[in-house]
Amino acid sequence: MKRIIVGQSGGPTAVINSSVLGVYLQAKELGVEKIYGMVYGIEGFLDENIIDLDDYLSDENNIELLKRTPSAFLGSCRYKLPKYEDDKVVYEKIFKILDKYEIDALFYIGGNDSMDTIKMLSDYAKDNNKKQVFMGIPKTIDNDLPVTDHCPGYGSAAKYIATSLKEIIRDNSSFGVKKPTVCIVEIMGRHAGWLTAAASLAKDDTCEGVDAIYLPEIPFDINKFVKKVEKLSTEKKSIVFAVSEGITDKDGHFICELGSSEKKLDAFGHKQLSGCANTLATLIAAKTGLKTRAIELSTLQRAASHISSLTDVEEAIQVGRKAVEGANDGKTGMMVIMEREKTRNYTINYKLYDIHSIANVEKKVPREWICTKHNKMKEPFIRYVKPLIKGELSPIYKDGVPVHLVRK
Amino acid sequence: MKRIIVGQSGGPTAVINSSVLGVYLQAKELGVEKIYGMVYGIEGFLDENIIDLDDYLSDENNIELLKRTPSAFLGSCRYKLPKYEDDKVVYEKIFKILDKYEIDALFYIGGNDSMDTIKMLSDYAKDNNKKQVFMGIPKTIDNDLPVTDHCPGYGSAAKYIATSLKEIIRDNSSFGVKKPTVCIVEIMGRHAGWLTAAASLAKDDTCEGVDAIYLPEIPFDINKFVKKVEKLSTEKKSIVFAVSEGITDKDGHFICELGSSEKKLDAFGHKQLSGCANTLATLIAAKTGLKTRAIELSTLQRAASHISSLTDVEEAIQVGRKAVEGANDGKTGMMVIMEREKTRNYTINYKLYDIHSIANVEKKVPREWICTKHNKMKEPFIRYVKPLIKGELSPIYKDGVPVHLVRK
Repeated sequence: MKRIIVGQSGGPTAVINSSVLGVYLQAKELGVEKIYGMVYGIEGFLDENIIDLDDYLSDENNIELLKRTPSAFLGSCRYKLPKYEDDKVVYEKIFKILDKYEIDALFYIGGNDSMDTIKMLSDYAKDNNKKQVFMGIPKTIDNDLPVTDHCPGYGSAAKYIATSLKEIIRDNSSFGVKKPTVCIVEIMGRHAGWLTAAASLAKDDTCEGVDAIYLPEIPFDINKFVKKVEKLSTEKKSIVFAVSEGITDKDGHFICELGSSEKKLDAFGHKQLSGCANTLATLIAAKTGLKTRAIELSTLQRAASHISSLTDVEEAIQVGRKAVEGANDGKTGMMVIMEREKTRNYTINYKLYDIHSIANVEKKVPREWICTKHNKMKEPFIRYVKPLIKGELSPIYKDGVPVHLVRK
Repeated sequence: MKRIIVGQSGGPTAVINSSVLGVYLQAKELGVEKIYGMVYGIEGFLDENIIDLDDYLSDENNIELLKRTPSAFLGSCRYKLPKYEDDKVVYEKIFKILDKYEIDALFYIGGNDSMDTIKMLSDYAKDNNKKQVFMGIPKTIDNDLPVTDHCPGYGSAAKYIATSLKEIIRDNSSFGVKKPTVCIVEIMGRHAGWLTAAASLAKDDTCEGVDAIYLPEIPFDINKFVKKVEKLSTEKKSIVFAVSEGITDKDGHFICELGSSEKKLDAFGHKQLSGCANTLATLIAAKTGLKTRAIELSTLQRAASHISSLTDVEEAIQVGRKAVEGANDGKTGMMVIMEREKTRNYTINYKLYDIHSIANVEKKVPREWICTKHNKMKEPFIRYVKPLIKGELSPIYKDGVPVHLVRK
């Protein structure tokens, strides 16, 4: 391999840039001449929006900054390739640009949709006798890619969620008032509850933890929820729930959409945007008279690199390295997966796996890890998630604020 | 002084516990025999809910944990004393308990309302020949206490806001889509814009900063705001605004309440709770067709001790120490203030100030520090706030999550 290119795609994470770094470092070690980055993923690539990574990463300081920079350093996109049986034009354009820059291997860091891109590009190359290889590098805070034990990005998001929930729980319990305060914290994850499940990590010797966890894997029963709040309100003064943005009732309707049909913003005459924590906080306030508060962890849960997991950063680098190693061995149409050894000490082996078994498949939280009676996570989940949030990578501060690396 | 008591009151901060520590450490150095803590402020004191701080702070490890524990370690309250001319009963009860425990000095850590408590207790003591002294210790993320240069708690909140906004700005600019995304971040502060003004700290060599800042000190003009968004949307792809929860229109109506009169949650038939970021995001989406996102920094801005300012922690300890020193000198009815030296290097002198000039007075952001034309903060504010966020106090982690100190 003489020339390669790496791109980022889909929603960013706190460590997506560490995978760019892994690609860069491994390629350098293998003597690759040019390491390009595509700006704004495959969409930017089609406009030949390409940079030379040496311009940034030949500097040791920038390497340290990149590890601590959230969001996609190269820029991201949500671009879905057409099936090449239907529309060859875009494929021909992509390969024309690959040929023009004499690129031997393309690496794409992303989630389900991005792996679909790698699948289609590698299939097209095979069917049309193209020499380039295509490798997928897993990345998603949602942790919903199949086969791999977990996905880089998830550990840091889980660490942010656990840390923030501990702080929210402390804050919520500061007043000794007679009536309890109910705090409902909304966490990302439309279809899979991995992130919300990480709320269970708030519980330790110094924290009582959240009172219940609601995942999209289990239908949400509003009446049961109200009863739970009523019962808890007789027992304690601070009540905190973690709910996934994607919870639905038994008929599959999103809780966040309940009652929004006629909801109006009178002054402007249009529909109000709102999340499920807000919907539930409003409901509980009305039904129980308790004080409620809705908190959405928002994009910070995927961007808070100031408290990223060192394990996650290191693994994100490793999956990048492994992809380059595989491409150098002539592999194509594969994604790097992480296999956990069944030993007492947490050990990950990096392997390659056929992209056809990965693209467009969504991995949910196993039902047997969820205690549906008490709305808690069971011990196997805790054992699964704990190693992923270990270790810290301190930010580099200037004037009291973390510094990032940005494109010129 | 042989026996003293300290309490916490009002909304918590990331460093309110460091002031408890300051009281404890100074009292120990002065040979005070008993250092009590009131649980849930003056409200808990009335129930004789009192602990001995030696039970926790004789342990060096616990001292380090307390510095890193958010929210009120002792518990807080929002209890307003009646005027003693109107109702002497509660005062008699308070002094009866003070006598029972042979307490010589009472320290109260809080904001405007809490300083009112100190004022009334010290006035009552003076008028009724009571020997106890009463000292106020400033604390508020809102930074709205008068006379003092700033308030402990503000610096850490400002640091969290700056750090989070930098991450939000990076996240918001990750996509290279054609249409820009407008992100509106809501920050605490009903009447004073100090916290929202701290959004200006997101701007540095590695970050473009927020596009505009809206404080409650300046009436909010919706039409101008929409025009600003329209103009910005022709110039850039990522637009981020910082708005105070307390912004009002020229007639003093809260923006967050605009249009809420007939707003309904159809399924439950009651009013939806909502903030001004949400209101504005909905408005902008409707008026411009742009993608919008509302983010509320929520209670995390006052509780995120994992990224507290070391300067803030140290100052919170010092104001606690100074209050004890003053009480030991026989002073009463005073609050500790921080005076900034007019030198190049940031230096704070701790002094005592008559509580009568402080209680119930609110300090707003000076108009001359606000650029109303571009909705930005001017240089004097930046010079004012920068030293307050300097330095870090790393959390103590266990299994990847920060550990706190909690009451048994």
